[in-house]
Amino acid sequence: MERQLIPIDDRGFLLGDGLFETVLFQAGKPVLWGAHVARLQRGCAALGLPAPDPNLLKAEAERAIKDRRLGSARAAVRLTWTAGSGGRGLIRPETPTPRLAVSAAASPRPEAPATVIVSTIRRNARSPSARLKTLAYVDNVLARREAEAEGADEALMLNTAGHAASATAANLFWITEGSLYTPSLACGVLGGVLRAEVLASAPVEEVRANLDTVLRCEAAFLTNSLIGIRPIRVLAGRFLGPHPIIDTLVEKLASRF
Amino acid sequence: MERQLIPIDDRGFLLGDGLFETVLFQAGKPVLWGAHVARLQRGCAALGLPAPDPNLLKAEAERAIKDRRLGSARAAVRLTWTAGSGGRGLIRPETPTPRLAVSAAASPRPEAPATVIVSTIRRNARSPSARLKTLAYVDNVLARREAEAEGADEALMLNTAGHAASATAANLFWITEGSLYTPSLACGVLGGVLRAEVLASAPVEEVRANLDTVLRCEAAFLTNSLIGIRPIRVLAGRFLGPHPIIDTLVEKLASRF
Repeated sequence: MERQLIPIDDRGFLLGDGLFETVLFQAGKPVLWGAHVARLQRGCAALGLPAPDPNLLKAEAERAIKDRRLGSARAAVRLTWTAGSGGRGLIRPETPTPRLAVSAAASPRPEAPATVIVSTIRRNARSPSARLKTLAYVDNVLARREAEAEGADEALMLNTAGHAASATAANLFWITEGSLYTPSLACGVLGGVLRAEVLASAPVEEVRANLDTVLRCEAAFLTNSLIGIRPIRVLAGRFLGPHPIIDTLVEKLASRF
Repeated sequence: MERQLIPIDDRGFLLGDGLFETVLFQAGKPVLWGAHVARLQRGCAALGLPAPDPNLLKAEAERAIKDRRLGSARAAVRLTWTAGSGGRGLIRPETPTPRLAVSAAASPRPEAPATVIVSTIRRNARSPSARLKTLAYVDNVLARREAEAEGADEALMLNTAGHAASATAANLFWITEGSLYTPSLACGVLGGVLRAEVLASAPVEEVRANLDTVLRCEAAFLTNSLIGIRPIRVLAGRFLGPHPIIDTLVEKLASRF
């Protein structure tokens, strides 16, 4: 029970000063565990936080799965690693003592293709938090509310320069004239774990593309660790069809989601 | 004791989905209380959250001051109002039940003028969270770390268009040829409570100004509810002097900080 509460002076709570990972568990086993831990460690280096012990993360994740009796389910474990308590206002204590919070929940995979609108909220390519999985996710929450308000599943966020960046909780890929594209990380994109798997599995061009360029695509899909590869059926009001490149990728990466 | 802990499924903790205010208390009495409550209420409207009952806020703030025996001190009360628990990932529950967390601490006023560097981290004028006091403050934490690393007190943040926006926890004003300027809110600026007091007390031009324009100033100062009006002694390596306009403002607004 104690593990389920955090003090209100936690800097993650007060300032979003921390990071998280959401890891897929299939039948009690984590999927792409090493990539999630590596991203969390890179995030710690970027924020100037001590990194967690991977063994501790693993033990706590497995315990959360067990406690929630999710050992035979498709489940998501959320690992939250904060800057801990203390400091004066924005200034961290000289030696921060990070805090770990772990939870688990069932995570069924969405079966239907996604409907995606374009958010009015822009991503900031000049902000570290746009490229790191920090706790500062309120812009994404608000962009997702815009999607909900229009009955859509997701919202495409452009960056302040007008280039496509990502959805609120997924990376974006599109196919134009048979070639596969995704926004480059420099556009203010979180480097998704499944995005990296796609890049390693197929020729993909990482680009700066404005919305018009993206909308000339013949097909598109979203990726994240929990939803896997999810085709887009409607993007900014345009209907998109299935595509053999997507089918091939789904088949190739089936074990990763 | 129970009030000092929050559940780890709180959306403020998980996603920065919430708002805060930091209110100065002098001898047990809040300063500019109405302005803080009004800003929190505007923030709730922007985020789509139910707003708190001002009487509850007042009672809890006074209780925090009393509990910490700060009734005769200069103190800061932090009011944190989150989207509460629940929902699925980014998506809030249909009827969010916000959570209030309140804490208090002594808050001596800095006596020395400030040394200010220019942060590499940009503010996003196209993000609601740049203009609202949300819990997503990690960019400000990182920008302040840049200041600390150079032995400075604060960091000036430009926006992605290169216009001056604000410091990490204060608004910026400068004086050029005897006129007073501050970045307009459209630059990605949080509308500070003391900033509004300055605007109401003196002729100020709200502008979009690039760094070069700001650095041509003859004097500059920072404002926030806790530090009050704090002159800048060094701005991006340039030494700045005192100025009678600043002295007049400090005198005029003395009761507000």
